[in-house]
Amino acid sequence: MSGPAPAPGAQVEAALRPDLRGRTAYGAPQLDVAVQLNTNESSYPVPDEVVADVLARLGEDLAGLNRYPDREFVGLRKALVDYLELQSGTRLRPEQVWAGNGSNEVLQHLVLAFGGAGRTALGFTPAYSMHPIIVETLGTRWVDGQRDAESFDLEVGSAVEQVRASDPDLVFLCSPNNPTGTALPFESIEAVLAAAPRAIVVVDEAYAEFARPGTPSALALLEHHERLVVTRTMSKAFTLAGARLGYLTAHPSLVDALRLVRLPYHLSTPTQAVAEVALAHAPRLLSTVEAIKEQRDRLVTELAEMGLRPVPSDANFVLFGGLADAPATWQALLDAGVLVRDVGIPGHLRVTAGTPEETTAFLTALRSLLPQHLAPTSTTTATAEGARP
Amino acid sequence: MSGPAPAPGAQVEAALRPDLRGRTAYGAPQLDVAVQLNTNESSYPVPDEVVADVLARLGEDLAGLNRYPDREFVGLRKALVDYLELQSGTRLRPEQVWAGNGSNEVLQHLVLAFGGAGRTALGFTPAYSMHPIIVETLGTRWVDGQRDAESFDLEVGSAVEQVRASDPDLVFLCSPNNPTGTALPFESIEAVLAAAPRAIVVVDEAYAEFARPGTPSALALLEHHERLVVTRTMSKAFTLAGARLGYLTAHPSLVDALRLVRLPYHLSTPTQAVAEVALAHAPRLLSTVEAIKEQRDRLVTELAEMGLRPVPSDANFVLFGGLADAPATWQALLDAGVLVRDVGIPGHLRVTAGTPEETTAFLTALRSLLPQHLAPTSTTTATAEGARP
Repeated sequence: MSGPAPAPGAQVEAALRPDLRGRTAYGAPQLDVAVQLNTNESSYPVPDEVVADVLARLGEDLAGLNRYPDREFVGLRKALVDYLELQSGTRLRPEQVWAGNGSNEVLQHLVLAFGGAGRTALGFTPAYSMHPIIVETLGTRWVDGQRDAESFDLEVGSAVEQVRASDPDLVFLCSPNNPTGTALPFESIEAVLAAAPRAIVVVDEAYAEFARPGTPSALALLEHHERLVVTRTMSKAFTLAGARLGYLTAHPSLVDALRLVRLPYHLSTPTQAVAEVALAHAPRLLSTVEAIKEQRDRLVTELAEMGLRPVPSDANFVLFGGLADAPATWQALLDAGVLVRDVGIPGHLRVTAGTPEETTAFLTALRSLLPQHLAPTSTTTATAEGARP
Repeated sequence: MSGPAPAPGAQVEAALRPDLRGRTAYGAPQLDVAVQLNTNESSYPVPDEVVADVLARLGEDLAGLNRYPDREFVGLRKALVDYLELQSGTRLRPEQVWAGNGSNEVLQHLVLAFGGAGRTALGFTPAYSMHPIIVETLGTRWVDGQRDAESFDLEVGSAVEQVRASDPDLVFLCSPNNPTGTALPFESIEAVLAAAPRAIVVVDEAYAEFARPGTPSALALLEHHERLVVTRTMSKAFTLAGARLGYLTAHPSLVDALRLVRLPYHLSTPTQAVAEVALAHAPRLLSTVEAIKEQRDRLVTELAEMGLRPVPSDANFVLFGGLADAPATWQALLDAGVLVRDVGIPGHLRVTAGTPEETTAFLTALRSLLPQHLAPTSTTTATAEGARP
């Protein structure tokens, strides 16, 4: 006496981890649109001379792909150390550096080593929306801390209070914050370290290279704080989103602990080669950063002139509020050939600073939608997730 | 009144997940030795014409690395489908294929989706030693099932009994098994599926291309079993250990579930490009498989002639017993310039089948150590971990 055959997928659905049921996969739409300003990529292609040097290096390396890659990526670590000194003035040692296939992977390694069942991670929403996804996917409890609902600032007193209330094992800070754009002062980072006396404190500096003059990097704090981690990526300022190379810096003992949870040989030989060659070309690859910052500042200025409310930005994007219906504006911009990001904050959209032409295309398209798309009042409330990319 | 300063690393040690404390990182020694037969890599470099085509493809792709890679790796999935049909005769659909940075990553995705706190995974030791490491790192309980202590076979009755006893959420089978070398009959796989009526059953076929004639691939079972997963890699037969490309095939609903736990854009543009080009050259890249199988069979024959006890192998390596002191023999071989693998089974070592010259070097070096290194009796017991690579 057998019943009807089960529906296709029913056995898989039954076997799935209960807390994953009903979830949807993370990811911004990958659409073929003329002006793509939705994932904070660089709009500038990799320069010819860098392509040529990468090809020359791979011409040497590819025949040897029958062998596993250097599991400890020694050459890449040295290249990252040199770059960080150049960019920030802080000289680190190779054993303070760790890398992965995108900063998502180094974040995953951190949560694997210091999170887990029965442990808690705290972040301050809206921030990089992969933080809670990585944390919860790994079975760690996520506490959704809050930023100021109007300014999106994270006041030091509020941060300390929230940290004390949740007693976290891990704290995620973003500086500059994504999707809101602003950087954190040292005072806030050190106050969080003090308020969470046993937690690993992660400062996600994915957009550090775009910060306004005088914005400090938490790299300078590493020598004083064994529990501090600074994460970075080559996806943004380095114009290498497609190469997938993220990294972090921390105390050597912390980096060493990550070797317990990484998958062996996680960085392929080509990945190490591309990143090493690109780092040797850092000044050339980062030469577009100033141009991108100009467009970012132009976005802030012109959006404000339109009656919208841009958030001050240290990154390569601008979050702006003042829209009546953000999803409707998102769709109207897409219909005009401009793809931006709806990060789920009511009345707000996020736009990447691209080339001058792309910025013009975006501003022109948006201007044509005004004043109909403007919110009737100037107040909206921040409640939802941020996003990178 | 403050005490002495804490030791460096003490705060990190205190923050580390308790079950990770005292662990050491996985990984065979990466030594600069003339004859490297320890990680089951291919000894054959990537052929010139494949290198040339990869460079041509990357010459087109690298300028566009400013953009994120195709998150769904559509082209790569199609190339894998075509290859699997060519190799096994089983035609799959692209939505049945999933890939990662090495098969370790696709195994990790499986454990993330179907394991977790309170869940159990079962494998049969000695087998691929990353299975328990991946499982336990992700907070899933590992049950160390056993194979026959003499033959390393997994009898179907024993497998079914052990599956019933542990009621697992995930079962790992290896066919051909690593480090012992033998493949599983369909009967065993289907019996395990029946005995674990809600479990995801993973057949790790990392070495499938080396199997002896008539050895079936579990790919042919996919159409009948929604809970069956077959994992593969390009690290072995495809001579691409350094490219880090592993994959799996399963029911589309199972593949779809893995999108909930993967990190977005986990496969870089160069990784997708290298793998796609290599798959287009499958016949050329796999042309060394027969030569490697000849050396494997030669190893089995000659090791037996020396009075050692090789395990029959469907893979590109041979496990052999009959040694008095495996670590001592491992070191003596290394001193002679030949690196093999001590997988932790008393009296046994594992050797990769390389080029004819490498096989000769290994056999010559080993022969010079006999009879002193032979075990006084012919019986040793299998107790410990296997390894890939």
